[in-house]
Amino acid sequence: MAYYLSADIGGTRLRAALFAAEGVKPLRRAALPTRGDEPVLERLERLLRSIQPDGGALLGIGVASPGPLDPVRGVVLEAPNIPGWRNLPLKALLENEFGAPVVVDNDANLAALGEWRYGAGRGHHHLLYLTISTGIGAGVIVNDRLLHGAHGLAAELGHVTVVPDGPLCGCGQRGHLEAVASGTAIARMAAEALAAGENSSLGELPHPPTAADVAAAAQAGDPLARRIFAEAGTHLGRALAGFLHVFNPEVVILGGGVVQAGDVLLRPLEETMRAEVMSPAYLDGLTLTTAALGDDAGLLGALTLARQQRG
Amino acid sequence: MAYYLSADIGGTRLRAALFAAEGVKPLRRAALPTRGDEPVLERLERLLRSIQPDGGALLGIGVASPGPLDPVRGVVLEAPNIPGWRNLPLKALLENEFGAPVVVDNDANLAALGEWRYGAGRGHHHLLYLTISTGIGAGVIVNDRLLHGAHGLAAELGHVTVVPDGPLCGCGQRGHLEAVASGTAIARMAAEALAAGENSSLGELPHPPTAADVAAAAQAGDPLARRIFAEAGTHLGRALAGFLHVFNPEVVILGGGVVQAGDVLLRPLEETMRAEVMSPAYLDGLTLTTAALGDDAGLLGALTLARQQRG
Repeated sequence: MAYYLSADIGGTRLRAALFAAEGVKPLRRAALPTRGDEPVLERLERLLRSIQPDGGALLGIGVASPGPLDPVRGVVLEAPNIPGWRNLPLKALLENEFGAPVVVDNDANLAALGEWRYGAGRGHHHLLYLTISTGIGAGVIVNDRLLHGAHGLAAELGHVTVVPDGPLCGCGQRGHLEAVASGTAIARMAAEALAAGENSSLGELPHPPTAADVAAAAQAGDPLARRIFAEAGTHLGRALAGFLHVFNPEVVILGGGVVQAGDVLLRPLEETMRAEVMSPAYLDGLTLTTAALGDDAGLLGALTLARQQRG
Repeated sequence: MAYYLSADIGGTRLRAALFAAEGVKPLRRAALPTRGDEPVLERLERLLRSIQPDGGALLGIGVASPGPLDPVRGVVLEAPNIPGWRNLPLKALLENEFGAPVVVDNDANLAALGEWRYGAGRGHHHLLYLTISTGIGAGVIVNDRLLHGAHGLAAELGHVTVVPDGPLCGCGQRGHLEAVASGTAIARMAAEALAAGENSSLGELPHPPTAADVAAAAQAGDPLARRIFAEAGTHLGRALAGFLHVFNPEVVILGGGVVQAGDVLLRPLEETMRAEVMSPAYLDGLTLTTAALGDDAGLLGALTLARQQRG
């Protein structure tokens, strides 16, 4: 049997799957915690070996990795959550170990590619994908190709300034979209409001509220929580209106845990986006939707890249 | 002789040039005012006829038009400064008139394409071009191709929100880059400061200051004028840092009349851009430069498109 291997290096879990030459159903799956005594690379190799068939031809391996990374050389420039991964030649190391072509790209790019090939973006040529969780990651498809830019560092849509001199972003700059609309930002806004003495059901929690806590409170009608989600949604909708002007996509896909808050986020987001486009032509035939592949987007994107690479 | 015709439909002038099958030097040029009694389309056709050789084969015509327009169908959706140009099938009309293939794209896209092929962007695969004049236009090259998006409406980099609830933009939205950093915005800031009683050499002019007046005053050291250019430059530099994160280009080209203000604009622009990128990797090998082709960028971009179309 000819087959592909696919891996997704998450902040908490390493996941891998075995796929046939064609088709999208994994034949085998496996996972390991990302953290532990054994180095992450060895653990990843062990994980891939654990699902590799005894015979058959390995056609290629696709890997979704935290970034920034250089997808052409397959080098992880920096993975802040993985000790020792600086300028790590992941592609070369895995090719040496497995004797097959390896492709590496960042997790948000590959989630975008997975949604484009097998998920909510099927059939479209121009796609924006945003994943809103702890941070805000993104991937962009232009003319059926991932937008990489000169060194593979493009499509960081979470890192555009939306509030000049605004809150500090995870990247060290200020007022980026990620700093006002990510899960981290939502939790921070809740903590700040409680510290300022605002009244909310969130104040009764035995711990500082997480974004999920704020989402639950918003869904239950808590006014502070709803206001925080409305603010994040407004920032996202305004930024998306700008991204429509920049990319004129056919489909915008929203993924990540924060999006599961549902209408408390998505209604202000969509209202703002529609109100702030400069011409209705940008909304012509536009689909705004949530991600379809869930946790598998990265694995399926890595599979897509490996298959594309083979041609 | 086999030849191409190229035209640029500007707000004040229609310009056209004749080119040989190869080479970049116009063999003939002509121009007419855009406004007048005769309809613009007839005037454009007359202008092209005036430089067309008697014999030889017309290989194609490229036209840079105000937008928004649909470059695939060659239809001008709306050209606010040209009476009657709504949903005008410019490509079809000119093909019918001249019996040769016609390509149409918006002026900023074609200026970007011209700079990429013959100007400040030669040899690069990923390019951003911004033209800062009355408004802010832009064109983006990704993998050696113009970024068009689904309907040719992409690359409107002047229309992203940089100041929430900021000044009104020419497009009707608020706080766009164009609303805080275009020539119009610079003139408005000067008028507002004078109306508020600020002291400046600009107050001695017999008319409300234009962006060019503010530039001259800034170059002569006028503190108000310098502050206005510093503010516009900061907005531009911050937006460019975001565009680097979004596109990871190799070269950023600045064109348009406002850029001729020079250091009073470009120094704060570049300082802000460099200070606000989230990783120095975005500056690796990056060229920030001014446009090389001047008024001819659109004509040469239209020529490039016509040649590309022919393949």
